[in-house]
Amino acid sequence: MTITITAFEKSPDGDQGLARDTRVRWALEEAGLPYKVRLVSFKAMKEPWHLALHPFGQIPTYEEGNLALFETGSIVLHIAQRHAGLLPDDVDARARAITWMFAATNTVEPPILELQNAVLLERDKSWNNERLPLVKDRVRDRMKQLSARLGNADWLDGDFSAGDLMMVSVLLRLRSSGILDEYANLAAYVARGEARPAYKRAFAAQLEVNKP
Amino acid sequence: MTITITAFEKSPDGDQGLARDTRVRWALEEAGLPYKVRLVSFKAMKEPWHLALHPFGQIPTYEEGNLALFETGSIVLHIAQRHAGLLPDDVDARARAITWMFAATNTVEPPILELQNAVLLERDKSWNNERLPLVKDRVRDRMKQLSARLGNADWLDGDFSAGDLMMVSVLLRLRSSGILDEYANLAAYVARGEARPAYKRAFAAQLEVNKP
Repeated sequence: MTITITAFEKSPDGDQGLARDTRVRWALEEAGLPYKVRLVSFKAMKEPWHLALHPFGQIPTYEEGNLALFETGSIVLHIAQRHAGLLPDDVDARARAITWMFAATNTVEPPILELQNAVLLERDKSWNNERLPLVKDRVRDRMKQLSARLGNADWLDGDFSAGDLMMVSVLLRLRSSGILDEYANLAAYVARGEARPAYKRAFAAQLEVNKP
Repeated sequence: MTITITAFEKSPDGDQGLARDTRVRWALEEAGLPYKVRLVSFKAMKEPWHLALHPFGQIPTYEEGNLALFETGSIVLHIAQRHAGLLPDDVDARARAITWMFAATNTVEPPILELQNAVLLERDKSWNNERLPLVKDRVRDRMKQLSARLGNADWLDGDFSAGDLMMVSVLLRLRSSGILDEYANLAAYVARGEARPAYKRAFAAQLEVNKP
C-alpha cells in the first residue's frame, strides 16, 4: 500500500530540516519504505479537509490504505512496530526504546518548545531579556540529566532505535541556541544521528522542497 | 510477576491526584492488575539509585521482573499492549488510540506545562501579570481544536482507550486555571473519565498516601 505523508509547502525554519516531517521521513528511510509527500500551505492546514486528518492543523500526517494517523511520535512508532530497523526484537529492550520516544516528546521537548516560544513569539516583549536565562536554565536541567545518562555510549539503550531517532530530532532544535554544544557527548550523539545514511536521505528530501 | 511503581512520598499538589503516578495507577486499575508502590522523597529522587531507574529524577517508574521503565506514556502503553481494556483489538483503531496518547503528551500537555511554569515558577516575576494571558491563549488554541474534534462524542475515537486516559489526565491539570470549564464538552469529557470506577480507585489510592 502506498504511504503518503504531509509536509510544509515551505518550512518556517527554511532549509534546516527542523519541521517534524523530517522525523517521519527519517523513520521511513531507516525502514527502507518508499513514500509520497503531499505539501500543504499554512492556509490549507487550517481547512476542514486537513483538520479531518490532523485535528490540531499541523504536519505531518500519515496515510496508508484506510489508516490515517497524525502525531510524529505515533507515526514513527507505527512504522517501527511493523518494520525492522527501529526497535529491538527483545520484548523488554523494545519497551525501553519506546520509553525513550516518550522521554523525548514529553520530558525533553517541552522545555525546548518553551524556549522556542520565548525566542519566536516573545522576542519583542519587554521581559524577554530578563526571562530568557530562566527558560534556558530549564532546558539545561534536562540536558545535564540526559548527558549524565548517555555518558560515553553511542545510543541511549544499546543499538540505535526509534527512541534515538526522536531524541536526536528533538535535540537538533537546540543547536541554534548554543546549548547543545555545552554538552559535548550530546553534541556528538546528535552528530552520530545526522551521519546515518537514512537521516541524510531524509534531510536531502526535505531540502529538495525547501531549498533557498 | 509483581509490579512495583514509584510515587511521591508527599505530592506537591497535595491531594488533587495530579502527580503522574495517578495515570499509571489508573491504567493498572483499568487492566485489573495488582501493584505495589514505593514512595520516594524529593531528596531520594535525585540519588543515584533512583536516577538509575529514572534518568530525569522523577516519578513514576515501573518495575516488573527484570524490566524497569520510566515515562508515564511509555508505562501506560506497556500495560495497554499486554492487557485487555485499554486498546482496541482492531490494528488500525489501535494505532489511532496510540496517536491520542502522543497527542496528549506532545501537543496538548506542553502549553499546559508552560502555563504551570508561569503560575508556579514565575509567580513573583515582574512580567507575570502581563505575560500570563498570552500563555493562557496558547493553551486555548489547543483546547479549541480538541473541543472541535471531540464534538458530541463520549471519547476521542470510539470506545474509551489509553488515549483518553492520557488526555483526561493532562486536561485535569487545567481545571484550577478555569480554562477547562470554558469548553463544556471537554469538561464533560474529563468528568466521564473521573467517573470510571478504575479512575476512582486510582484517585483513592493516591489520596490514601497524600491525605491532609
